[in-house]
Amino acid sequence: MSDSVKIAVDLMGGENSPEKNLEGINLFVKKNTNKNDYYFYLYGDKNLIENKLKQFKYLNENNYKIFDTKIIVSDELSAMSAIKKGKGSSMWNSIQSQIDSDADITLSAGNTGALLVMSKMILKTLDNVDKPALAGLWPNEKNTNVVLDLGANIDCSEKNLVDFSEMGAALFKSLFPEDKPKVSLLNIGLEEVKGTELLKNTHAKLKQLDKLGDFEFKGYIEGNQIMKGDSNVIVTDGFTGNIALKTAEGTANFLTKTLKEILKENIFSRISILFSYFSLNKFKKKLDPRKYNGAIFLGLTGPVVKSHGGTDGLGFYYSVELCYKIAKSNLINKIKENLSHTKKLNEEN
Amino acid sequence: MSDSVKIAVDLMGGENSPEKNLEGINLFVKKNTNKNDYYFYLYGDKNLIENKLKQFKYLNENNYKIFDTKIIVSDELSAMSAIKKGKGSSMWNSIQSQIDSDADITLSAGNTGALLVMSKMILKTLDNVDKPALAGLWPNEKNTNVVLDLGANIDCSEKNLVDFSEMGAALFKSLFPEDKPKVSLLNIGLEEVKGTELLKNTHAKLKQLDKLGDFEFKGYIEGNQIMKGDSNVIVTDGFTGNIALKTAEGTANFLTKTLKEILKENIFSRISILFSYFSLNKFKKKLDPRKYNGAIFLGLTGPVVKSHGGTDGLGFYYSVELCYKIAKSNLINKIKENLSHTKKLNEEN
Repeated sequence: MSDSVKIAVDLMGGENSPEKNLEGINLFVKKNTNKNDYYFYLYGDKNLIENKLKQFKYLNENNYKIFDTKIIVSDELSAMSAIKKGKGSSMWNSIQSQIDSDADITLSAGNTGALLVMSKMILKTLDNVDKPALAGLWPNEKNTNVVLDLGANIDCSEKNLVDFSEMGAALFKSLFPEDKPKVSLLNIGLEEVKGTELLKNTHAKLKQLDKLGDFEFKGYIEGNQIMKGDSNVIVTDGFTGNIALKTAEGTANFLTKTLKEILKENIFSRISILFSYFSLNKFKKKLDPRKYNGAIFLGLTGPVVKSHGGTDGLGFYYSVELCYKIAKSNLINKIKENLSHTKKLNEEN
Repeated sequence: MSDSVKIAVDLMGGENSPEKNLEGINLFVKKNTNKNDYYFYLYGDKNLIENKLKQFKYLNENNYKIFDTKIIVSDELSAMSAIKKGKGSSMWNSIQSQIDSDADITLSAGNTGALLVMSKMILKTLDNVDKPALAGLWPNEKNTNVVLDLGANIDCSEKNLVDFSEMGAALFKSLFPEDKPKVSLLNIGLEEVKGTELLKNTHAKLKQLDKLGDFEFKGYIEGNQIMKGDSNVIVTDGFTGNIALKTAEGTANFLTKTLKEILKENIFSRISILFSYFSLNKFKKKLDPRKYNGAIFLGLTGPVVKSHGGTDGLGFYYSVELCYKIAKSNLINKIKENLSHTKKLNEEN
């Protein structure tokens, strides 16, 4: 157990907690019975949890320990109120366990603002990082993108965007060790003269960093190229990243809804659904947003993953799997190494 | 002819010009043979045009006049070079015809940057408008959205965003006179406290303007709600709007490509395509980007429409139809009226 990865889970956040959280962890254990290198610290109301645990047969004392915490951070609270009322909560303690105990990573499906602020307070930002970022995973034609920032920082400086590039490249490398991170800056044109002064300056700095080998810098990328897969780390400020993420979500919903309606329209298209059942199912599975559930908070001394509050057990399973991969890969060391290159370059200039 | 709408068309811009442009105009005339209230001023190389015209049987001297212009603005030129070299070009003269002649609107599929700068130089901005905006049409679940700015202005002030709201509402009203324009500000959250100071100030101003009756102000909207159809005028700065538009495009391409590949995978899904042929075709048609071809340059003393450079004859037809509707509805007067309300409010405050 001492060599195993310790995942601290806030069981009380999000809809249908703690059932869906336990269901996700149970599924993870079921799929990884051959491994013996993980262990869960579970934070929440012990009576409630023990009562629910009966239905999850893969969970036993070899793979988890419960920490009884009665305080819950409600989804409705502002981040500031959550901080005041949230000390000793399941959210707070699951983060604190990276300091007080030996947890390697924290996972919560609770209040995003509260989780970000608490994580920053408890874990502190890494040396030389001004602003931590929220990174997400997106499908693309070839594999998966890391996209950041998704909304933690509305205003970003050149230094922030450069840090995001280094941290995003480290995250990509830790999830896909076979591939080289290819970083692109999101902009409204591909030519070097396009965009804001901030983007132009960041572009120049990333061109220099490209030579240090943590990632290949591919220049600017436009919104319509994000899912092509030629780049796999997409860097932008939190305002733009959030708009892009949600617009992509909305477009996907609009298209699948329109397709569904049209396919149900007449008898021929209804028959076609029978014939294409497995294909349409595969389409649905391939693009299932639950597979990409889990935003990673980067730039702190320890990793924190935010699961979507409204996801179900399967969605929560994917964020547990993500935590396991991140903790195994020693992401924080990779981030520190990448950031040291930026620091060196700044000192040289 | 004197009461008819005069549409000045730059025939030389974009790929496959002037064929696709003439094909689009020809299709418009074919579909509107019962009407006698439009007339085309065609700008370009007269010999070339007359040579091509033989294949387009609906075009005749009752519906067009050619203005011989040998100079062409190339797609590769920067806007500034295009201005220097572009005087007397088909693009320039098609705009100038709103001043020198009685053209009501200008349509070009040429170099976007050049078209924007030339239009501003020749037509001038309306009184009290600091920055003209580029507006586009998007499908939504109920009807169509007007979205602006799509990239003409990277940096926007509160006044710019308020002007965009008034101008976008006027455009929506002129295209869909039956519906009330419902304006929303694109942001990363729905609560009034979310977003930049700029957005908060704009939100407060639009709330006041709501009472003056040009539009209903629906507050903030997030990216995933753009295509729901609850709002129909979506206002944002040109950087964010361009990213949102292109991300939506890229997502739609990614999804349809994935669906196509999966449907071709096995014999059952191939059979299903036969049964759902008409449905899938309807899906394709409903979301055909050519139907939304045509970005409208708002805030000048006359309307200018930019067709996508890479579109085909059918796509160009849709932008001709858009020009006809805009010119018939007297958009510029509607814009002036809406802007006068903003001016009045500013004077009161």
